[in-house]
Amino acid sequence: MHKTINLSLSDIFELSVDALLASGANRENAEAVAAVVRNADRDGCTSHGIFRVPGYCSALKLGAVNGHAKPELIDQAPSIVRIEASNGLAPLAVEAGRPSLIKKAKDQGIATLAIRNSAHFAALWPDTEPLADDGLVAMSFVNSRAFVAPAGGKRRRVFGTNPMSFAVPRSGQPPMVFDQASSAAARGEIMLAARDGHKALAEWGLGPDGEETDDPAEILKGVQLPFGGYKGGAIALMVEILAALLTGGETSLEAERSYTGHGGPSPAGHLIIAMDPKRFGQENFINRVELLFEEMLADPEVRLPGDRRLAMRQKTQTQGVDIPEILFQEVREISRGPK
Amino acid sequence: MHKTINLSLSDIFELSVDALLASGANRENAEAVAAVVRNADRDGCTSHGIFRVPGYCSALKLGAVNGHAKPELIDQAPSIVRIEASNGLAPLAVEAGRPSLIKKAKDQGIATLAIRNSAHFAALWPDTEPLADDGLVAMSFVNSRAFVAPAGGKRRRVFGTNPMSFAVPRSGQPPMVFDQASSAAARGEIMLAARDGHKALAEWGLGPDGEETDDPAEILKGVQLPFGGYKGGAIALMVEILAALLTGGETSLEAERSYTGHGGPSPAGHLIIAMDPKRFGQENFINRVELLFEEMLADPEVRLPGDRRLAMRQKTQTQGVDIPEILFQEVREISRGPK
Repeated sequence: MHKTINLSLSDIFELSVDALLASGANRENAEAVAAVVRNADRDGCTSHGIFRVPGYCSALKLGAVNGHAKPELIDQAPSIVRIEASNGLAPLAVEAGRPSLIKKAKDQGIATLAIRNSAHFAALWPDTEPLADDGLVAMSFVNSRAFVAPAGGKRRRVFGTNPMSFAVPRSGQPPMVFDQASSAAARGEIMLAARDGHKALAEWGLGPDGEETDDPAEILKGVQLPFGGYKGGAIALMVEILAALLTGGETSLEAERSYTGHGGPSPAGHLIIAMDPKRFGQENFINRVELLFEEMLADPEVRLPGDRRLAMRQKTQTQGVDIPEILFQEVREISRGPK
Repeated sequence: MHKTINLSLSDIFELSVDALLASGANRENAEAVAAVVRNADRDGCTSHGIFRVPGYCSALKLGAVNGHAKPELIDQAPSIVRIEASNGLAPLAVEAGRPSLIKKAKDQGIATLAIRNSAHFAALWPDTEPLADDGLVAMSFVNSRAFVAPAGGKRRRVFGTNPMSFAVPRSGQPPMVFDQASSAAARGEIMLAARDGHKALAEWGLGPDGEETDDPAEILKGVQLPFGGYKGGAIALMVEILAALLTGGETSLEAERSYTGHGGPSPAGHLIIAMDPKRFGQENFINRVELLFEEMLADPEVRLPGDRRLAMRQKTQTQGVDIPEILFQEVREISRGPK
C-alpha cells in the first residue's frame, strides 16, 4: 500500500489551484478546474480527482492547452448556445455556457450547449448534476482520443471512450446522475491493471494482433472494445456524432493524431442537452421520479446509479480524503513553480 | 419450415389496411399503422411487419386501443410539441407531431416531440429516419410494459424493453439509423426460442426464482435483463424517465398492471428529440459524417448499424416479401370482417 496523507476538500482545492497557477493557468481557469477536481475527490471518483492535476499541469506547461483561454459564448439559435473554447480547459467552458443553457431550457423547454475545442479531462457528472440541481433533466456527451474499435472491429481505433451522463432532479436529495464510458472498461482501469500485474477481462479489448488477451498491456497497445457488444458500439458512435460532429469539434481520431504525449487532457467536443419538466407540463414530475425509484429499490439488490458517490460525499465533507503521499508531494512540488 | 407466400409491399399495405379497418380502425389510423408495418417488412424487420397486424386487430376489437383516436397537438413551448394520443395508435400520433417537430427543430436548433397515451407496437427507426431524411439528427425513446429488472435486480420487473433509436443524415444515401432495446434480448426473440425449443443465453434473463436459466420459457415468467450489465441498466432507466415521466405517460409498470392480455400494443410514452446541424453552424456536417463512416469501414469486419436493413430494402422493393401462408390467411380472414 502507498503511504497516504489526509487532506480536507478545501486543501485539495487550494493545492490544485496553486499547481495550476504555477503551471501557467490564470486564476479563472485554475479555480474552475480545481473545483471539478475537488468535487471528484469529494465523491470518491479518485481517478478524476487531484490524481489528474499533474496531467493538467504537464499539458499547460507544454502549451498543449491554453490556460488563459477565455471561452467565447455564441448565442447560436433560440435553443442553442455554443462555446468556442479555443483549446482552453473544459471546466471553465462548461461554467461559461451553463447560465445561458439553463435560461434557454427554461424559456424554450429544451436547449443545448455545444462546446468545441475544449481540453476535456474530467468526469461528466459535474456537468449534468448542477443542471438537475436547477430542476432540469440533463444529458451530456463527450468524445476523446481514439482508443476504442467500432462494434465488430478488431484493430482500428476510431472512438474515444466516449462517455455519456444523464441527470434527473429528485425530491429533497441530490439528483440521480449516471456517468459512464461507452467502452467496456475505463482506460485508467486498464492502466492500473497493467501497473499492478492484474489480468484483463476478455471484454475489455484486444491486443494489437486483433486477438483476445488477458494482458492489459497488450490491450493498451491494441484496441478497447465497447461495452455490451454492438449495442454499446452504437452508443459510442452516437456519442462521437453528437459530441464531435454536431459541435464542430475534433473527432476522436483527429484528437489522437494530433496528440503530442503530454499526458493531459485532449481536445474534445462536448454536447449538453437540458430539458425543463415544468415546460413539458409535468408539475408532478419529481414525485413520479421518486415513485419509480421506490419501485426499483423494492428489490434490495438494486442500487441507484451514483449512490456510492453520494454516500462518499457525506463522508468526505467531514473526514477529508486520503491521497497517496507521493501524489501530494508531486502536486506540491508543481505548485512551487519552476526551480 | 412454414409454407410461405410472396407479397408485394403494396399487397402488405393494402392487406394490413383492410384488416385494421375491419377491426374498427378508421382509415387515417389504419393507413398510418399499415405504412409502418409495410416499411418494417420492406426492411426485413419481420417481427414488426405484418406479423404484428393480428395483435393490433385484437387490441382494436377488444377496445383496448382506440382506432378512431385523433391525436391532439399541443404547442407546449417554443421547442416542445406535445401529442395527447388518447389511447390511439402510435403511428398516427407520430405522423401528427412530425411536421411541427421538424419546424421547431429548424427554427430553434433543437426541439422535442412528447407523446403520451399512445399504443406503441412498432420499431423506432420509422420515427427517426424521416427526420434524418429532412437533414436532422434525431433520437427517440419509448417505454413499454414492464419485463426487465433494473441492474442488480433479480425478481422485480420495472422497465419495459425500452428501446432507443438514433438517426443521422448521410450524403446521397439513406440515413444511418440504429434502433435497439435496452434489454439484452428482444422479447419476441425469447418467445421464438421458447416456441422452437432453443436454449436461452444466460444474459437474456432470470427465471421466476431469480436464478440463471437457459430455458426461455422460465425467463418469460421471470425477468429479462438489460444489455451490457449496469451500463445498459442505466440506459433502460434513462429511457423510462424520458419516455414515460417527461411526457406524462404511463410507466412500464403502470402499463403492465393495466394490461388485459389482448396481445396488442401497450400504452406508452414516447420522446423524440431533433437537432438541426445547420442551426449549429455545421455546414460541413454531412461530409464529416461520411469521413467518420469511412474510418469505421476501413476495418472490413465493421458494419454500420442498419446496413442489413438497407440491403433488404433494395431487394424487397422488386422481389416482395415472403410471409408464412398461415399468417397471410389469418390477416385475410380478419380483413373479411366478423362472420
